[in-house]
Amino acid sequence: MKARAFAQSSISENQVNPGTSSMELIASQRCFGGQQNRYRHRSKVLDCDMTFGVFLPPQAEPGARLPVVYWLSGLTCTDENFTQKAGAQRVAAALGLVIVAPDTSPRGENIPADPDNAWDFGLGAGFYVNATQTPWAAHYQMHDYIVKELPALVESEFPVSQRRAISGHSMGGHGALVCAFRNPGLYESVSAFAPITNPAKVPWGIKALTGYLGDDAATWREWDACELISRATERLPILIDQGLADSFLDTQLKPERIAEAARQADYPLTLRLQPDYDHSYYFIASFIEDHLHHHARVLLRD
Amino acid sequence: MKARAFAQSSISENQVNPGTSSMELIASQRCFGGQQNRYRHRSKVLDCDMTFGVFLPPQAEPGARLPVVYWLSGLTCTDENFTQKAGAQRVAAALGLVIVAPDTSPRGENIPADPDNAWDFGLGAGFYVNATQTPWAAHYQMHDYIVKELPALVESEFPVSQRRAISGHSMGGHGALVCAFRNPGLYESVSAFAPITNPAKVPWGIKALTGYLGDDAATWREWDACELISRATERLPILIDQGLADSFLDTQLKPERIAEAARQADYPLTLRLQPDYDHSYYFIASFIEDHLHHHARVLLRD
Repeated sequence: MKARAFAQSSISENQVNPGTSSMELIASQRCFGGQQNRYRHRSKVLDCDMTFGVFLPPQAEPGARLPVVYWLSGLTCTDENFTQKAGAQRVAAALGLVIVAPDTSPRGENIPADPDNAWDFGLGAGFYVNATQTPWAAHYQMHDYIVKELPALVESEFPVSQRRAISGHSMGGHGALVCAFRNPGLYESVSAFAPITNPAKVPWGIKALTGYLGDDAATWREWDACELISRATERLPILIDQGLADSFLDTQLKPERIAEAARQADYPLTLRLQPDYDHSYYFIASFIEDHLHHHARVLLRD
Repeated sequence: MKARAFAQSSISENQVNPGTSSMELIASQRCFGGQQNRYRHRSKVLDCDMTFGVFLPPQAEPGARLPVVYWLSGLTCTDENFTQKAGAQRVAAALGLVIVAPDTSPRGENIPADPDNAWDFGLGAGFYVNATQTPWAAHYQMHDYIVKELPALVESEFPVSQRRAISGHSMGGHGALVCAFRNPGLYESVSAFAPITNPAKVPWGIKALTGYLGDDAATWREWDACELISRATERLPILIDQGLADSFLDTQLKPERIAEAARQADYPLTLRLQPDYDHSYYFIASFIEDHLHHHARVLLRD
């Protein structure tokens, strides 16, 4: 009931903290005894309005300090795919985890889109990098949004601690790994479903990194999990699930590459190859409980 | 693995039983160790092609005889909303239940739609009745499709028994109750989420019943759960969940009416009013486990 009280006080104010964040509650739905909320706010980093989902479990009473799992979705997704299809709220409610699900790119009238309306670049396909190229650099700063602006907002507005984990799917699995490797100390745990492990060497990644970062492939290394893991100073618990009936397995995802990079770096990595599972949310729903328990083992440890 | 073998043999044939049903497997995805399949077939009753979803749990080996839960979706839905958003497969896999999710109306080029493209009549809004009025009667025979043609197909093509339960949401909750009350012996258990309990007396129902059945309200009684329960000879276990933050509660759903009709008929009815829950799939996801256990208690009993 307290989670509801929290959400409803937000509804009645409409702007949770109008003086600072102008975060606006745009939907609030009871789910597994907690509250699945959706917010809109002005992102300074992306220079546009953004929406994101927050699941507040029943334990999210005012004054609580709950850990947060950030979820990064894949190509073509918005902030809603995960909240509607993964079934994560059941587990998060049992464990007392807050889940924050941002959008996958900047959005809005002034945001440049791929001129060919591609689904693997531009809108819905920010790749969680900080773009350096025109016209993308003005808005496509998804990495800084995810690792700086969004956690700062979440930690100022919700009853959460500074204990964080990050997970994601496909492009978002790439994003989760890269956010963790680039920001030691920010997350305590990381996981991914069918991540693009080696974007600098696969078609989706080459297209996106060329577009956002330019032709110099040396700059791409800073956004490639296989490269970053070889230099990582931190050792986070990493769980990766990959379906073996995933139609993108051989061309875009290549889990064997991060397994080999982790082996060479002596970085412990749990990579589970799941027979018969594909790239869809049926796959994510089947294993999200394992991933949230993976994060909770660390996040809920004293 | 056997469920997969079953599905894959279907894939390889493409038509599972071309001599009789011409049922075609159009999607097959691993989910919670079972298989979420989608089929297309020619419906004689509806005189059009129809799609439906079937979840086969891991226990669905060839030669098995598993019970089936039929799920009827609500206004604007297709066969996919439930399979993608309810999270039912996790529970069905644990219990060994097959779930069959049909579409909500006939579909296709030749199927008449509401001339105003209304979302509460015509396509996506078949109301699970047998229409008598022109032009609807030629195709809108959803009741006979649900209670006759579809179970006959399912029972000829899948490793299922003749033990059946039925459930649904909103318009589909109305459908589940009416299908059960009109067909004694067909189902062993029934449940509903936020059903339209008294369609003959609420705006959605009056519009639909007028359109499909004509102006004579006497004919509507045969499709109204509050009316049918008063004449029921059978006593099925009934579970109804209704969210109290449901925006359609007072105008369209009116659970108090079926509670009163059940009381007058001395028909045991479990009606749970769930504070703060709305009409969405977040509500369904939160309680689908209870509903499947409600059905399993009967369906899995010797």
